[in-house]
Amino acid sequence: MILLDGKKISSQIKEEIALEVSKIKNSGEKPPHLAAVIVGDDGASLTYVNSKVKACKKVGFDSTIVRLPHTTSEIELIHKIKELNNNDDIDGFIIQLPLPPQINTQKVLLAVDPSKDVDGFHPENFGKMALDMSTFIPATPFGILELLQRYNVETKGKHTVVIGRSHIVGRPMSILMSRKGWPGNSTVTLTHSSTKNITQIILQADIVISALGVPNFLKAEMVKDGVVVIDVGITRVACEDHPKGYVIKGDVDFEEVSKKASFITPVPGGVGPMTIAMLLKNTLLAREQKMDF
Amino acid sequence: MILLDGKKISSQIKEEIALEVSKIKNSGEKPPHLAAVIVGDDGASLTYVNSKVKACKKVGFDSTIVRLPHTTSEIELIHKIKELNNNDDIDGFIIQLPLPPQINTQKVLLAVDPSKDVDGFHPENFGKMALDMSTFIPATPFGILELLQRYNVETKGKHTVVIGRSHIVGRPMSILMSRKGWPGNSTVTLTHSSTKNITQIILQADIVISALGVPNFLKAEMVKDGVVVIDVGITRVACEDHPKGYVIKGDVDFEEVSKKASFITPVPGGVGPMTIAMLLKNTLLAREQKMDF
Repeated sequence: MILLDGKKISSQIKEEIALEVSKIKNSGEKPPHLAAVIVGDDGASLTYVNSKVKACKKVGFDSTIVRLPHTTSEIELIHKIKELNNNDDIDGFIIQLPLPPQINTQKVLLAVDPSKDVDGFHPENFGKMALDMSTFIPATPFGILELLQRYNVETKGKHTVVIGRSHIVGRPMSILMSRKGWPGNSTVTLTHSSTKNITQIILQADIVISALGVPNFLKAEMVKDGVVVIDVGITRVACEDHPKGYVIKGDVDFEEVSKKASFITPVPGGVGPMTIAMLLKNTLLAREQKMDF
Repeated sequence: MILLDGKKISSQIKEEIALEVSKIKNSGEKPPHLAAVIVGDDGASLTYVNSKVKACKKVGFDSTIVRLPHTTSEIELIHKIKELNNNDDIDGFIIQLPLPPQINTQKVLLAVDPSKDVDGFHPENFGKMALDMSTFIPATPFGILELLQRYNVETKGKHTVVIGRSHIVGRPMSILMSRKGWPGNSTVTLTHSSTKNITQIILQADIVISALGVPNFLKAEMVKDGVVVIDVGITRVACEDHPKGYVIKGDVDFEEVSKKASFITPVPGGVGPMTIAMLLKNTLLAREQKMDF
């Protein structure tokens, strides 16, 4: 069993990005600049945004946090997005989700200039991804592809079963794993809440990508020997013994499933750390695109 | 076995559209107007465009054919597209494919205003479809959904196997059949040229959607009893006895497979006639969208 070590690989990627940034700076150009828009005071959202900003600093990016009150209207937010679209100093930006209920998230995401949409959430970028065009790939799926690539995991002709059809993980992974090229070219089955006989389907999988959010859902008796397991579940489970009062649990019963797996991601330290690294990578790509124009 | 009669249903849909058009005209508004751009003199393309124009006439739409010489440059074509984007008299338009080799098809499709993209080929519309937003659905997949709906075929929780990952059929069908709602909510496996053990996969299918282009590929021993079969294959097979010198063959060995199927599309007369009907439907939707604004 080989551990798909997201902590290690994400550090490598950040080092590679930092090297690129120092090249950019040495050539007299300004470094990539990521902005993050956050509406309201949700604690988890603030934590996420702060960790993204911290990661920017670490690789030498400029970063800006745009904080707006929780009473912000949809029109005000879209106005702010248009400012960011037109601000040549910003290479890419993200809208931290969720947004307050008075704001239509779809309308807001549609207002982002696709060339600055480093989250890859704009329908135009999502469509380009599905139509095999080059574009920003959402950070978590992009991180999974990168893990498969850096560990040289064969995907062609394999049967990949994706669990969950969310817009940010399951749906894009089902598309990416069935596209031509590597990682990809696998036969993909997308399962979800209406799927029957899910165990029977997962038992056929060479690669399982689980983005369900149910701790310990995937048991050893549900997978075949040699399976590749990507665990995208991140659920907080109460734990009195832990100083934080909770621990993070994946979808996979790691202890048992890892005995049968050829490759497996741990939780934490698997897909999670890859996400911020790939957001940085997308921001670097946004910067380089601009230089090409 | 129930025949999914695309010829009959497409006639019904055209009648429904004609009724809507007469309502629009009676209210003193102009009818929907579809334009088709064709570059060069390819015989098959001209035939397709002419049949689309004929269908427009039948339901009372205005139509325009924009014919450009095969020497047209990419810039000239994009200029023409921008004219159509800005022409308020045109509700929707299509670019007949394939385009001559000097023209980059992706760039051209990106130039079409998504709100006039009645083929549903623009990445923004494709992405909206994948992200469960309302948009134009490409005509052939839209026609398949319509057939399933009008024959009241249950899809929720069923296992759908899609054969082929083309941008115009396989990829969008794999997305549509796994979206929430009906027709949809099925567990979808997308198979393609790199798939191994394809027979073993198809044997599990409750619904098979074949868009492979290999005549008589799908045999009776590859499907289970009660299967729903959608045949999107259209291949010309030489036939001396036929006045045209060829016959149209689907992917399915209809005679044998139909004995096991609960529902099945014939070829010709199944999915084929639905495609033009749904192009008209999309043009009507484009027209109505405009009136809503």
